[in-house]
Amino acid sequence: MKKPSWLRKEYLRDIVFNADTPIGHRIDIAIIIAISISLIIMFVETLQGLHPVVKLVLEVLEMLLTLVFTIEYAARLYSAERPHSYAFSLWGVIDLIAVLPPYLTIVLPGARYMLMLRSIRFLRIFRIFRLFSFIDEGHMLLRAIGRSFRKIAVYFLFVFVLVLCLATLMYMIESGEPDSAFTDIGTSIYWAVTTLSTVGYGDITPVTFGGRMLSAFIMLLGYTLIAVPGGIVTASFINETNAPVRDGRCPRCGSKVRKNDRFCSQCGEKL
Amino acid sequence: MKKPSWLRKEYLRDIVFNADTPIGHRIDIAIIIAISISLIIMFVETLQGLHPVVKLVLEVLEMLLTLVFTIEYAARLYSAERPHSYAFSLWGVIDLIAVLPPYLTIVLPGARYMLMLRSIRFLRIFRIFRLFSFIDEGHMLLRAIGRSFRKIAVYFLFVFVLVLCLATLMYMIESGEPDSAFTDIGTSIYWAVTTLSTVGYGDITPVTFGGRMLSAFIMLLGYTLIAVPGGIVTASFINETNAPVRDGRCPRCGSKVRKNDRFCSQCGEKL
Amino acid sequence: MKKPSWLRKEYLRDIVFNADTPIGHRIDIAIIIAISISLIIMFVETLQGLHPVVKLVLEVLEMLLTLVFTIEYAARLYSAERPHSYAFSLWGVIDLIAVLPPYLTIVLPGARYMLMLRSIRFLRIFRIFRLFSFIDEGHMLLRAIGRSFRKIAVYFLFVFVLVLCLATLMYMIESGEPDSAFTDIGTSIYWAVTTLSTVGYGDITPVTFGGRMLSAFIMLLGYTLIAVPGGIVTASFINETNAPVRDGRCPRCGSKVRKNDRFCSQCGEKL
Amino acid sequence: MKKPSWLRKEYLRDIVFNADTPIGHRIDIAIIIAISISLIIMFVETLQGLHPVVKLVLEVLEMLLTLVFTIEYAARLYSAERPHSYAFSLWGVIDLIAVLPPYLTIVLPGARYMLMLRSIRFLRIFRIFRLFSFIDEGHMLLRAIGRSFRKIAVYFLFVFVLVLCLATLMYMIESGEPDSAFTDIGTSIYWAVTTLSTVGYGDITPVTFGGRMLSAFIMLLGYTLIAVPGGIVTASFINETNAPVRDGRCPRCGSKVRKNDRFCSQCGEKL
Repeated sequence: MKKPSWLRKEYLRDIVFNADTPIGHRIDIAIIIAISISLIIMFVETLQGLHPVVKLVLEVLEMLLTLVFTIEYAARLYSAERPHSYAFSLWGVIDLIAVLPPYLTIVLPGARYMLMLRSIRFLRIFRIFRLFSFIDEGHMLLRAIGRSFRKIAVYFLFVFVLVLCLATLMYMIESGEPDSAFTDIGTSIYWAVTTLSTVGYGDITPVTFGGRMLSAFIMLLGYTLIAVPGGIVTASFINETNAPVRDGRCPRCGSKVRKNDRFCSQCGEKL
Repeated sequence: MKKPSWLRKEYLRDIVFNADTPIGHRIDIAIIIAISISLIIMFVETLQGLHPVVKLVLEVLEMLLTLVFTIEYAARLYSAERPHSYAFSLWGVIDLIAVLPPYLTIVLPGARYMLMLRSIRFLRIFRIFRLFSFIDEGHMLLRAIGRSFRKIAVYFLFVFVLVLCLATLMYMIESGEPDSAFTDIGTSIYWAVTTLSTVGYGDITPVTFGGRMLSAFIMLLGYTLIAVPGGIVTASFINETNAPVRDGRCPRCGSKVRKNDRFCSQCGEKL
Repeated sequence: MKKPSWLRKEYLRDIVFNADTPIGHRIDIAIIIAISISLIIMFVETLQGLHPVVKLVLEVLEMLLTLVFTIEYAARLYSAERPHSYAFSLWGVIDLIAVLPPYLTIVLPGARYMLMLRSIRFLRIFRIFRLFSFIDEGHMLLRAIGRSFRKIAVYFLFVFVLVLCLATLMYMIESGEPDSAFTDIGTSIYWAVTTLSTVGYGDITPVTFGGRMLSAFIMLLGYTLIAVPGGIVTASFINETNAPVRDGRCPRCGSKVRKNDRFCSQCGEKL
Repeated sequence: MKKPSWLRKEYLRDIVFNADTPIGHRIDIAIIIAISISLIIMFVETLQGLHPVVKLVLEVLEMLLTLVFTIEYAARLYSAERPHSYAFSLWGVIDLIAVLPPYLTIVLPGARYMLMLRSIRFLRIFRIFRLFSFIDEGHMLLRAIGRSFRKIAVYFLFVFVLVLCLATLMYMIESGEPDSAFTDIGTSIYWAVTTLSTVGYGDITPVTFGGRMLSAFIMLLGYTLIAVPGGIVTASFINETNAPVRDGRCPRCGSKVRKNDRFCSQCGEKL
């Protein structure tokens, strides 16, 4: 007996994995809308004092969406060229986590597992990153960040060491005070990050004269430090933007381009 | 019988719509001053513990200004080439909202409508944007932002997705605590935006060890993220500023300009 | 009878007004050190719980410094080419305010004037700006800011209008709540500036859902806005720094310079 | 009798001072791991409510690590070309402080010295800077910052003077209020730095109308000021990055390089 066409692996694969075919594109948009709705439901369910009827409607809606996601997961698993590698890939695991909790509530009854399962359910938020498969613009942004990656990493290491030193000094100064908010170095590190990043919640603040002077120094430092990643990324951006004009080379593949070329003749990059 | 000259549509139109004629320019300035005064009155009226005499003076002044704005609105409606399209344009609606409330208090008496009408009155704040009709400098600013618009939009989408993920993770970690400030995901999103933007009110703060470590991570992330729109806008600005010198082309229309030209010969853009 | 040399106006003028002569330079440094000491005394005197002996020592020291400043003020007034224009210049008024209060306490006895005179005394802080007469480096900084001045002014006008609109909207949303911190539009403006500048004290925070969503929007806006003056100043800086290399002209006077010149041949600007 | 090879000064010096030899490199990594572990132990010990057994294990571990650091210190002192200059160098003093406290507790018993010694112990945090001996990337970062150093110093002097003036003005305005948080000018300076750097803890906030308006002004100023060091560092960075391409010279030694050179032929700098 011949399989119906929509059951053939190649056909399914086109639909669920390939957003370039017309039907695949439409299915992709439908899935993203379904994900968005399921996230909104998840968010609304955390509100306190919901009417029981609203709660019921949300739960039914969620069950339907879970069914849709289950079918999608099954289709992906069935049609994948290497089902094994999909199942254990990051996306495969996130897709599985997104559908599993409701079924587990049936298999593992009782309030004990309930809470943990509800908590795991929140991880489906990561499915929202699918959204980025639609955007071309992100490319240049990521490339500029990618180019600066090592410099930014070194910079972060420097900030991290600075945070450790400042947190330890503040603990030395402030922990002697009665009712000090600096109870341990972990708290002190949290405070140092809050201050250096100029967030400044104010839940932990210095009260001694020495502590306040050190804080003022840290803030002025943070003020200058905040400029450094900006300088790195901006320098990278300007190089990125100006490169084709200045040295007549494609910013992607490095091959020569002429002044009036609008696309690289070797790799098709838009100039 | 012949209409007096100030009643002819063409003449009125020159006065109320066209700021280029000498009289239109003077009327325009007078209207902006009147708007500013009416806004100051509106602000002062919200102060608590005003003397009854001051209150009365302010109300009389406001009534007079409302009369002026009514005449202006009528003149605009009467002299507009297409009165219909002016009445339903954004500016038309704002102008109407600015004059309507006092008249409605006569038509709809009683305290019930009073509060709503007083509230609507505040929307006249948007008339202040008229101010920008006077400034030439804003052009380059808006063009630089406009050029970067798509990149900034993609960036904001990225920040928004990040905010959703972080808010959900923090809700997972913190909501279990007794007396947690993270009561629902809406609150958690508000907290995540407050933190990523480095505002940090401190009305909602993490109390668990895990929550504090995640917060510290978010802050360092926000620290780097803050550099990205800066990089985008700056790159755009520098291109904007350097373009004529570097590639000998007008930044507005793209036609060739010579090195010593001070204005583009095709579109008149100042170089 | 012949005047002694140090009483001749020309000689005195060289000392108190001209920091270029060796003796004038030394006197200038001495005066700045005296100002710094008088400021430190002023700051220490505001501390609560000072020992009476310390208080006495500080008061005696201050009296001596006041004497020094009085002599300096008299010398300036006596030797100035146009004493009248010095006395009514900004610096002349500040110098006068810095020495007057102690003498007024003798003329106007009684506790009534005491407090006001002590308060006026604080205005001598502005004498610290004398410090900048020593620094050459500030030039380029001020020029870069000066070049961007108009653009930054327009930008501030835009931010100001935005602040007014946001403050009014938040007042509309939040003032209806019982115990709302948004008591009047003045407070609301203060809150809007605190939020847009990402300072975020947390003394005034939104409590309604609508208010929080609007706040989150304002913060993301402030996040982008913060990039704009950075873009303006950086673009100006880079032009400032690159200009001599790129277009072979002096950044100060605009005359042509050759590639290996280290100073402009026309105005002596360091390249 | 001949000394065993590992006791010869030259051999030891290679191990403890020179990270370029294979064995020196391995020893260096081992020492950094040991430092990291000792820091983690130090941090964990500040936590309250630790189990006595955990405390004991940590103390034993710390004693072992102190032994390792003592041997390292002795080896460095013994093998240094000029032991005297090492002992009194910054690194020598930090290394000594890191090992001394446990021995001093034996020499100076009693609870009186205990607290001071525990406090001194925290200074070993500075040994973490050893980490930077591993990173090549930091070079360019430091050079860009170094180039901008004088400009940033002038800028900081300007910010400092501004902070003093604003702090004094706020003290004048706010200190008259009952229960004002602005108790003295030291506190006022702390507040001014907190605000200008956009940290904004909220532990000290203005309550008068005048104070709030001045605060709003300070914040908008801080908003613009935050752009200046960004502009300085970015301009330096872009010059740093673009220099070899633009003027065909090595950014390190200044000698001429050809367009396709990947390293400077004079100093080996990567281009």
